[in-house]
Amino acid sequence: MKHYTNKEIGELDKLRRANLINSLSGYKPANLIGTISGAKQTNLAIFSSVVHLGSDPPLFGFITRPTGEVPRHTYENIMETGVYTINHVHESFVEKAHYTSAKFERETSEFAACGLTEEYLENFAAPFVKESRIKLGLRFVEEMPVKLNGTILIIGEIEHLFVPENALLENSNVDLHRAGDACISGLDGYHAVEKAVRFPFARPDDLPDFDADRRTK
Amino acid sequence: MKHYTNKEIGELDKLRRANLINSLSGYKPANLIGTISGAKQTNLAIFSSVVHLGSDPPLFGFITRPTGEVPRHTYENIMETGVYTINHVHESFVEKAHYTSAKFERETSEFAACGLTEEYLENFAAPFVKESRIKLGLRFVEEMPVKLNGTILIIGEIEHLFVPENALLENSNVDLHRAGDACISGLDGYHAVEKAVRFPFARPDDLPDFDADRRTK
Repeated sequence: MKHYTNKEIGELDKLRRANLINSLSGYKPANLIGTISGAKQTNLAIFSSVVHLGSDPPLFGFITRPTGEVPRHTYENIMETGVYTINHVHESFVEKAHYTSAKFERETSEFAACGLTEEYLENFAAPFVKESRIKLGLRFVEEMPVKLNGTILIIGEIEHLFVPENALLENSNVDLHRAGDACISGLDGYHAVEKAVRFPFARPDDLPDFDADRRTK
Repeated sequence: MKHYTNKEIGELDKLRRANLINSLSGYKPANLIGTISGAKQTNLAIFSSVVHLGSDPPLFGFITRPTGEVPRHTYENIMETGVYTINHVHESFVEKAHYTSAKFERETSEFAACGLTEEYLENFAAPFVKESRIKLGLRFVEEMPVKLNGTILIIGEIEHLFVPENALLENSNVDLHRAGDACISGLDGYHAVEKAVRFPFARPDDLPDFDADRRTK
C-alpha cells in the first residue's frame, strides 16, 4: 500500500498530480455537453463531472474550470443562450468523445472535427448528439463559484429527456448497460461496464446475512 | 425513443421520478464515506456523488441532501470533527456497501451492522474502511448550499491517500480496474467495470482519422 500525505501530493509534478488526483473520485460518468453561441456556433465538450443534485425539480450540476485562464466555450455559450444538452457517451464512440477535449478555436465545431452529428429536437436551441442514446436538454438555473480554486458548479434543470424505450425499465429506472454507456477513469481512461446487480431499498430491520458465505465455506 | 418534457417528469410519482432522474447522470462512482462523532460514534454511508474539484490543492466535493428532513449523520459528524474518509467500493462488497443506506439509528455503526471493518491510519481521526483498496482522508474546507433544493456541496482537501502499489501506473494514474472498483447506476444498480481503453492528450492538430473504419468497410 502506497501512502501519500497532502505535502507529498503537493510535491508531485503537475502532470503526475493531475493523473493521480483525477483518478481518486472513482469511476466517472462520460457525458458530452452540447452548446451553441448567440452567433450560432456550436460546441461539444466531454465532461466527467456531471452530478445528480435532485429529482424534484430534476437538477444536475457539472464542474467547469476557471474561466480566466483559457477560453471556456461551453461556459460562454451557456451564458449567452441559457441552454445546453447532456449526451451520454456510448461505448462505440469513446475515441471521438475524448478528442472533443482538444483546444479547438471557437470557430471550429467539435461536432464536425470529431465526427459526431448535431441533432435538433423539440425546438430546443442547443444541439444534441445524434449518436447518443440518452440525451437531456437543460436550462441553466444557477452558477456557484468554488472560491478555493475558481472552479464553478453549473446547475441546470431538465427541459427535455430522450431515452431509448428498450433501456427504460418497468420501475422507470434506466438500464445504462443496455443503453451501452461508457464510464471514465482519470483523464484518459474509458471503460465498458458490465450488467447491474440490483439490491432492494435498504431497511435496518431487513438486512441480508452478510457473513453467510463465509460461514458455509 | 421515449421523450419526456419537464412537465411530464414532474407528473411521475415520486419513486418513478427518483429512479428515472437518478439514472440520468450516467455511471457514478461508488464510495463509502466514513465519519466519527465528537462522542466517538462511527458512521459509514454510501455516496454516488463524489466529484473531483481540482488537483492543486487536491479537492473533492460530494452532495448531501437537506439536513432538515431527517438526521444526516455524515454531515453532522463532519461538522463536529472536521474530517472524513472516502473509501472506494470494491466489487466484492457492493451488497454491504448498499445496505449502509438503511436509516440506522445514530447509535448503530454501519460498519458493524453491514459487516465492514473500521481501520485507523496515520493518527487520522475518521475511520477508513479496511476492505477498501483506495482510501482518502479529507479535511472539511467549505460547504456550499444549493438554494434551489436545499442540498449541500461539501468540499474537502486530501490529507492522506492510500492506494495499492499494483494499481499505481508509471505516470501516477490509478488503474481502477486493477483495484477492482465498482460503479453505480441509479439508486440500486452496482456494476463491475471492464479494462480501460486509454487515449493520448488531445491536440487539435493531431486528430485520429475517425472515419477510417467506415471507409475500409
